[in-house]
Amino acid sequence: MIVVMEAGASERQVQAVVERIRGAGLNTHISVGVSRTVIGVVGDDRTKEILRESLEVASGVERVVAILQPYKLVSREFLPHDTVVTAGGQPIGGARVAVIAGPCSVESREQILAAADGVKAAGATLLRGGAFKPRTSPYSFQGLEEEGLRLLAEARDRTGLPVVTEAMDAAQLELVVRYADMIQIGARNMQNYTLLREAGRARLPVLLKRGVSATIEELLMAAEYILSEGNYQVVLCERGIRGFNGHTRYTLDLSAVPVLKQLTHLPVLVDPSHGTGKWRYVAPMARAAVAAGADGLMVEVHPDPANALSDGPQSLNIENFAGLMASLRPIAGALGREI
Amino acid sequence: MIVVMEAGASERQVQAVVERIRGAGLNTHISVGVSRTVIGVVGDDRTKEILRESLEVASGVERVVAILQPYKLVSREFLPHDTVVTAGGQPIGGARVAVIAGPCSVESREQILAAADGVKAAGATLLRGGAFKPRTSPYSFQGLEEEGLRLLAEARDRTGLPVVTEAMDAAQLELVVRYADMIQIGARNMQNYTLLREAGRARLPVLLKRGVSATIEELLMAAEYILSEGNYQVVLCERGIRGFNGHTRYTLDLSAVPVLKQLTHLPVLVDPSHGTGKWRYVAPMARAAVAAGADGLMVEVHPDPANALSDGPQSLNIENFAGLMASLRPIAGALGREI
Amino acid sequence: MIVVMEAGASERQVQAVVERIRGAGLNTHISVGVSRTVIGVVGDDRTKEILRESLEVASGVERVVAILQPYKLVSREFLPHDTVVTAGGQPIGGARVAVIAGPCSVESREQILAAADGVKAAGATLLRGGAFKPRTSPYSFQGLEEEGLRLLAEARDRTGLPVVTEAMDAAQLELVVRYADMIQIGARNMQNYTLLREAGRARLPVLLKRGVSATIEELLMAAEYILSEGNYQVVLCERGIRGFNGHTRYTLDLSAVPVLKQLTHLPVLVDPSHGTGKWRYVAPMARAAVAAGADGLMVEVHPDPANALSDGPQSLNIENFAGLMASLRPIAGALGREI
Amino acid sequence: MIVVMEAGASERQVQAVVERIRGAGLNTHISVGVSRTVIGVVGDDRTKEILRESLEVASGVERVVAILQPYKLVSREFLPHDTVVTAGGQPIGGARVAVIAGPCSVESREQILAAADGVKAAGATLLRGGAFKPRTSPYSFQGLEEEGLRLLAEARDRTGLPVVTEAMDAAQLELVVRYADMIQIGARNMQNYTLLREAGRARLPVLLKRGVSATIEELLMAAEYILSEGNYQVVLCERGIRGFNGHTRYTLDLSAVPVLKQLTHLPVLVDPSHGTGKWRYVAPMARAAVAAGADGLMVEVHPDPANALSDGPQSLNIENFAGLMASLRPIAGALGREI
Repeated sequence: MIVVMEAGASERQVQAVVERIRGAGLNTHISVGVSRTVIGVVGDDRTKEILRESLEVASGVERVVAILQPYKLVSREFLPHDTVVTAGGQPIGGARVAVIAGPCSVESREQILAAADGVKAAGATLLRGGAFKPRTSPYSFQGLEEEGLRLLAEARDRTGLPVVTEAMDAAQLELVVRYADMIQIGARNMQNYTLLREAGRARLPVLLKRGVSATIEELLMAAEYILSEGNYQVVLCERGIRGFNGHTRYTLDLSAVPVLKQLTHLPVLVDPSHGTGKWRYVAPMARAAVAAGADGLMVEVHPDPANALSDGPQSLNIENFAGLMASLRPIAGALGREI
Repeated sequence: MIVVMEAGASERQVQAVVERIRGAGLNTHISVGVSRTVIGVVGDDRTKEILRESLEVASGVERVVAILQPYKLVSREFLPHDTVVTAGGQPIGGARVAVIAGPCSVESREQILAAADGVKAAGATLLRGGAFKPRTSPYSFQGLEEEGLRLLAEARDRTGLPVVTEAMDAAQLELVVRYADMIQIGARNMQNYTLLREAGRARLPVLLKRGVSATIEELLMAAEYILSEGNYQVVLCERGIRGFNGHTRYTLDLSAVPVLKQLTHLPVLVDPSHGTGKWRYVAPMARAAVAAGADGLMVEVHPDPANALSDGPQSLNIENFAGLMASLRPIAGALGREI
Repeated sequence: MIVVMEAGASERQVQAVVERIRGAGLNTHISVGVSRTVIGVVGDDRTKEILRESLEVASGVERVVAILQPYKLVSREFLPHDTVVTAGGQPIGGARVAVIAGPCSVESREQILAAADGVKAAGATLLRGGAFKPRTSPYSFQGLEEEGLRLLAEARDRTGLPVVTEAMDAAQLELVVRYADMIQIGARNMQNYTLLREAGRARLPVLLKRGVSATIEELLMAAEYILSEGNYQVVLCERGIRGFNGHTRYTLDLSAVPVLKQLTHLPVLVDPSHGTGKWRYVAPMARAAVAAGADGLMVEVHPDPANALSDGPQSLNIENFAGLMASLRPIAGALGREI
Repeated sequence: MIVVMEAGASERQVQAVVERIRGAGLNTHISVGVSRTVIGVVGDDRTKEILRESLEVASGVERVVAILQPYKLVSREFLPHDTVVTAGGQPIGGARVAVIAGPCSVESREQILAAADGVKAAGATLLRGGAFKPRTSPYSFQGLEEEGLRLLAEARDRTGLPVVTEAMDAAQLELVVRYADMIQIGARNMQNYTLLREAGRARLPVLLKRGVSATIEELLMAAEYILSEGNYQVVLCERGIRGFNGHTRYTLDLSAVPVLKQLTHLPVLVDPSHGTGKWRYVAPMARAAVAAGADGLMVEVHPDPANALSDGPQSLNIENFAGLMASLRPIAGALGREI
């Protein structure tokens, strides 16, 4: 941590800052430059983090520059090798590109079974489907709730595809754990710390989606909440950030893939369906995600998008999904992976 | 709602869309232009909203343009007059500019009482203070929890200032309702629909903060969740959006004030502390907020910012807060309000 | 064009708007809904565009919704087939993925010839290099100017690679036309209309880079300026937009590729060097760009990035560029293209 | 400047970096922490700036942190007191809040004289009006050019209001200097370095508008270009940044006002007309700007907005402008200023 003093900071102000740092049990390196004095702070990271805000307010201080990342357990420094998360027997991370596919929400037994059969035949490795739907409007379809979870479990039993589904609070989490193979925490809940802690105590792997305005650090800190409770089975998912390209619902930040792969050992997926909001752009962006090095995809597939109760415009039908899967194989192969 | 057909859409595609609309019990107005056919949809709003996504996916459709806002109860059309919310006897909305002030988090009995006394003396009308703190890092101070609520209640009894404090889940909400006068829902939870619904069933007024990447519509829809459960005592709060002006933590979107005042009857506050993240910028932005027509302010004030356990850098000390209050009075007066 | 009247608009206000529209020689379709009257406007597009702003200000009007895009010549409706631009004999657009490579700026004869030889050997199809450098700081290296252009021409003569280089004003444009094969208009000048018009009168193809906060429409309108002067040889280039992922200089908006390919017949390139600002991320994002369907790449390559006078941190060395080219071939192949 | 080495950087890598720094004539302070070595760089700022990029690419380096701002002449450290710019005898900066008002573009003699008379009567101190219009569409009205400048000069002679008008290239600059009292450089040209340098050599004061995605540093560096050529008469203007509040054209970043006032000695104006794009929001945001400490305003006023050839929707009519001026006076008074 480095404390940059103001241009006109007095000797006394510098001294007061140094004393505060040393009083906390940390060491200082003082460097007097032409126009500014800079104080390097050496010692325990936790202590530095606690001290940081108070130094920012100290008299004569211009700013405090952090040198280390605020996260620990999720960092590549902590675990240098790629983590492979296993959900219902299916690996996420590693040589095989994982593909989670299925409808936005479970609407009926017929719909979810048709979707599951279709995505299974096309090569998906996990099944998605929402039982509790976080909808912007209180007047929209809100999901089948426990009945939806039961139908997802039936679809898993029939196809062998492990099930990934979202929980939005502790009560839902308990139900999700009972029926599913992987807990999804949605973008809107990425900083719902109560939920993150509960998921950290659950015995299922967690798929954590990036909030639409979350920085890379905020995403990693949210994952840190889960790991800090003992659950190391966490998968990150880029799903688009708030942007101004009005032709897509969000701006899919694919550069987050190589950035995250450098900073963390956790697997990184991409959701091109929410990221674009339009089915026409899902296939090119799915291909781009795999080429960028993503460990997998999360894709919305519906047997009949025109009659979907939610997210129809961004859902592929079974045929288009099968076409996408076929087009992904040589790209994965070009990167030394399989799909 | 208006359906714009693609440039080369066939007569048959147009017909299929028209039949789908009429089949849902809505009427159509067809307008054949030089390069495109446009279909106006007339009838029940709820039906239109349900039909919208499926029309977007229909063959030959370029896009669907919504004409009406998706919210109802929060809109000015629903209630043309300004709502005045009352929290612990204090009005928010109306001629008097409300000022909610206090520390980011309750740290100790001494700290919260000193803060409460100080902000009361300077003219604040409500007391803020966090008992449960949503911190980006799992390793940071997380709040005094119920003990913090008890101390807030003591501070209220002593000063007469009603208490506003944040709840992050249903369990916390129950405690907050027991001790406080107004429930705060934080920016990170703006789309935590479970919490919004619970708050909608509570008997206390709600302060709803805008998410850092939430559009105006998303904020109004989040409020609609609360009103749709029967709780009409909702106050909105702009607190900064994600931006790229690195000198401030967020970009305070003051234009949200006149925009919201036009669209909704609910009171609108501004939080310049989180909006800027630096105490130096709090006073000018607080003055700007009042001048822009905000119904009130939410300001972080700490008796000793340099030793605050959270948000020290953006907290005013008591003296600076008193100075700010003095400077606000003539501005409020210039707008025909008092403070 | 559709005019949405306010909820409480009077019969008289509707009548006044209708008269204004008809007075301009356009027709109207009036649709009276439950809560609003909507007026469809039919007729000549140019007239509509001129009328639009005045209707927005008319009494009783809530908003005006444009149905058509404001651009003409660049649109796919105008030319349904992909345009192939030819620069110095090299095609951009079509089955072959074009690769423009070279240093940020021409620094010396030795440097540009080494760069040209290196990128040629690795398979680049055009050479880039800046003679006039738009630098954020007036104190940074500003380019070799005409001498730089002469060296670029020498590199072309030696390697056969056509030369792409930036012009920032009319005087530079004249020089660029004398020495180069393609005019680059940089992101900072995307809305420099004087320059766009001059480029539209030049006899060379133009590479137009998207501004860092330009919408898709603004980019297409900037291209329209060039085409409207008679120069149809325009290539668009996505190079990153302003974002908040602090690990990259900009956020590379790859979804702009399929969006632009749908809207326009012009070829679309991607510049992963400026888009990320860090050489480590250039290769994955270059692969992603090709997988997303880009017609080509623009990549910064320097024989010795550690001693580059500009953009060293985002430049590949020759070896890494050759590795990138090798990795791109199977991806291009997977999409039915070659490189 | 501080160089942070990677966690696993070798002794040899550290040594190589130190030698490179010392070889450039700078000194180093090495601080070996628990997990990282940090190298402080001391010495001449220009040399550091030149070295920075090459250090970022050096083997074993994680990142380079700049301590000093890259600008000099515009900084408060260079000139601690507020600069007062004088345009045609009217001060901008200082106790009096300057108000530049007038139409977006000069459309006719009648229109500009009516506008000038109106804004003069209401208390404006300078007259604005565009002769060359940077329009997004090549098919829109592009301005009266020299005839427009002549009309502006006539309006000045009649009212005594100095004239501010935009130049988009060197040729226009020459004409603007001949007729006007202050050169405006628009947001789209904020990084048109050719134009900035030319303006730096002109003998008129310059109004420099912030680009819609320009950071505070980029704005200050653009101003530095002008000052570095010898012209210290520069006024900065915030006019809205790219945001996602769809109800306003841009997001007016009023926090830029106190941030800029802290960093630079140059006067800071706000343009609420472009910042919001809707006349309804101009008055509240103008009041907010003055309350935030802006040195002045730039407001679009048109005698007949419904028939304006450009920017009608965001223009005030004379009556509304007079009302705004009246409402600003007590706010300016509350801040110890006059208007």
